[in-house]
Amino acid sequence: MSAVPLTAEQDREAEAVAEVIAAGRAAALRHWVPATSGNFSVRIDEHRVAITRSGVDKGALTSADILIQPLDAPLLPRSSAEASLHVALYRRDPAIGAIFHVHAPASTVLSRIAGPGGLRLTGWELQKALPGITSHEQSIEVPVFANDQDTDRLAGLVEARFAAPIAGDGLLAPGYLLAGHGLYAWGASPREAARHLEALETLFEFELSYRRFTP
Amino acid sequence: MSAVPLTAEQDREAEAVAEVIAAGRAAALRHWVPATSGNFSVRIDEHRVAITRSGVDKGALTSADILIQPLDAPLLPRSSAEASLHVALYRRDPAIGAIFHVHAPASTVLSRIAGPGGLRLTGWELQKALPGITSHEQSIEVPVFANDQDTDRLAGLVEARFAAPIAGDGLLAPGYLLAGHGLYAWGASPREAARHLEALETLFEFELSYRRFTP
Amino acid sequence: MSAVPLTAEQDREAEAVAEVIAAGRAAALRHWVPATSGNFSVRIDEHRVAITRSGVDKGALTSADILIQPLDAPLLPRSSAEASLHVALYRRDPAIGAIFHVHAPASTVLSRIAGPGGLRLTGWELQKALPGITSHEQSIEVPVFANDQDTDRLAGLVEARFAAPIAGDGLLAPGYLLAGHGLYAWGASPREAARHLEALETLFEFELSYRRFTP
Amino acid sequence: MSAVPLTAEQDREAEAVAEVIAAGRAAALRHWVPATSGNFSVRIDEHRVAITRSGVDKGALTSADILIQPLDAPLLPRSSAEASLHVALYRRDPAIGAIFHVHAPASTVLSRIAGPGGLRLTGWELQKALPGITSHEQSIEVPVFANDQDTDRLAGLVEARFAAPIAGDGLLAPGYLLAGHGLYAWGASPREAARHLEALETLFEFELSYRRFTP
Repeated sequence: MSAVPLTAEQDREAEAVAEVIAAGRAAALRHWVPATSGNFSVRIDEHRVAITRSGVDKGALTSADILIQPLDAPLLPRSSAEASLHVALYRRDPAIGAIFHVHAPASTVLSRIAGPGGLRLTGWELQKALPGITSHEQSIEVPVFANDQDTDRLAGLVEARFAAPIAGDGLLAPGYLLAGHGLYAWGASPREAARHLEALETLFEFELSYRRFTP
Repeated sequence: MSAVPLTAEQDREAEAVAEVIAAGRAAALRHWVPATSGNFSVRIDEHRVAITRSGVDKGALTSADILIQPLDAPLLPRSSAEASLHVALYRRDPAIGAIFHVHAPASTVLSRIAGPGGLRLTGWELQKALPGITSHEQSIEVPVFANDQDTDRLAGLVEARFAAPIAGDGLLAPGYLLAGHGLYAWGASPREAARHLEALETLFEFELSYRRFTP
Repeated sequence: MSAVPLTAEQDREAEAVAEVIAAGRAAALRHWVPATSGNFSVRIDEHRVAITRSGVDKGALTSADILIQPLDAPLLPRSSAEASLHVALYRRDPAIGAIFHVHAPASTVLSRIAGPGGLRLTGWELQKALPGITSHEQSIEVPVFANDQDTDRLAGLVEARFAAPIAGDGLLAPGYLLAGHGLYAWGASPREAARHLEALETLFEFELSYRRFTP
Repeated sequence: MSAVPLTAEQDREAEAVAEVIAAGRAAALRHWVPATSGNFSVRIDEHRVAITRSGVDKGALTSADILIQPLDAPLLPRSSAEASLHVALYRRDPAIGAIFHVHAPASTVLSRIAGPGGLRLTGWELQKALPGITSHEQSIEVPVFANDQDTDRLAGLVEARFAAPIAGDGLLAPGYLLAGHGLYAWGASPREAARHLEALETLFEFELSYRRFTP
């Protein structure tokens, strides 16, 4: 009659699954993942992440919609093609604990206006919600990549860009834009990833509105 | 004392009515059906659909507001004039399981800017939420018809347009715009119709915002 | 121990008070009555209306915030100065059952762009939510008055405008704008007034968005 | 077993803490404090205020996140640097009972468009929600300061500006903007501060939208 107690490892896995579900719901409430778009992942440990499978409504996730993806194995069946972009980032940087991807409106529209040259934000106090920024006078660089259905190739470009800062760079944001597609943002924990996601989408909203008044 | 069990047919009818009610509520929460506008239908079977009657608040539907319309009979009393547009589509295409019509803001405004020439979307990843689209590089064609109070005439135009793709067409969207009026979208199931509706309104929102920055 | 039953008259008064409270809450949820702005009234009978008093949060109304204003008496203590505008309309037209006034954004901004010449809407299907409109091709006239702190003088202008249609007028809307101030809308019942209010604010939202793309 | 009754002073402290928590939650629901931005304070008495500590989600505050800051002492550990701006205002003006600071979109964007010369609002009825304004024809002056990470220096500028009205000033608003940063607003009570905050952000929203149509 008594339940077998969960191991610490099972506990952590269940916790990560719950964190993915909560992140999806929060984004859906903002209408940032329209029409089953977006994907969300949380690191379980050094070797595995919990990640949303392809094609599900992110506002109505259940644990059956979350895959446990090993970082050193091919993508599981039912994976989103974009899971490659998550896995590559987790492999490259062990400090990343969660990655959230949304099709939020300001991110999506500004990604196309900014073009592949990237986007530099400056003058907004809210930039200080991003790591390493202590003054609105510092600028922050948000890479913008051309969208590509070949997500492995795209993952390689992302990796190269974050490995090798460009001369004259401001600080690199904990995230990037895919043109006409949307925003990826990450952090050490789900809470931090959510804060970075909200900071970036809000900064883009400010920037879009501001640009309507400046030549 | 015991309830007479529902037949399978009655079950399916009740289910379709519940799906119409749910679709209306979801649209009302987004303010996409202002002032009793919009209409919603779900196919019951080969011969009948459940459809909202005229002039009711789509956020407060009850089963008394849903008509069971035979596809081979004239419109029932209390029908919306626009029921013709639903019936014509269900007759033409047996794969259509649900049709939702809203006066959502981006759809309504863009329908008037685009004009009767139609609208071509390209470059948005979210287009992949629409059937047949596997890359943002494919374009999708959304027909725009001049609004017309003669809904039978309008139904004929819609039918002709979807029956005969125009040379150079991208894929046709599972939906169309009426200029200054709003969006019709459909799918094989209520869930799919809702996904197409949200995808199209969101794409139009992106497009409107983007066009403010491009000549 | 037994409660004294309400008379029919007391019932109707309590019902009207509840309808005012519900209308205020619905408007507050849309952020249409910021910072205690707006006012709401419902006719009780030929001689009296229930109306919000001055300076209260319309999203948190209780019956203590609703005054029972006789139509043939001076404004009660604690009345809003704008109660004059309500009373004048109820006196002029016995068919009016409810009047709602909001500082909704599209109404407020468009009122200043349109100027005192008034506003003519045409080409929107949603116009059909307004009485007398059966086609998007009909135009509807929304009077715009210069704002005036002398609400008695303003009430006179409103009365004159609605009593004497101007040559070439389309149909007059069941409402008007005060420039830089907001929207008044009415109907035979609270439900109809709410529908007209939502139709007008939404039409103005469409119109504002559309005008950004047209010279 | 019986609880020790709270003193009147403890009661007032607990009440102020609850008011800070409520103000933070209300702002978070409007998305005015993205990514842990913003800060909120309520005066307890002549000598102390309750104020949010640095770096917490204002939509999920608990009493552990609220500091009891004496007005005549240095900032407590875990204080936001911006607590200086609150303390300076409470010291200068004993009538101030609550100060709320948000990164709301219209405030933040308009603060950068207006520039350090300040902002003059005129012609909006909603201005009457601000103290001393009895007509839309009066203008109201909202100071705009260049953002500065040195909050003590900034506090000095704010103090000087509100102590010495400039010739030709309209009435000074109960609040100010920091360019690219956001809005500070205050009032005699939390309720009044919330009303001024909502009035100002809404006026800025009107103003931004209106300016898109005027050269």
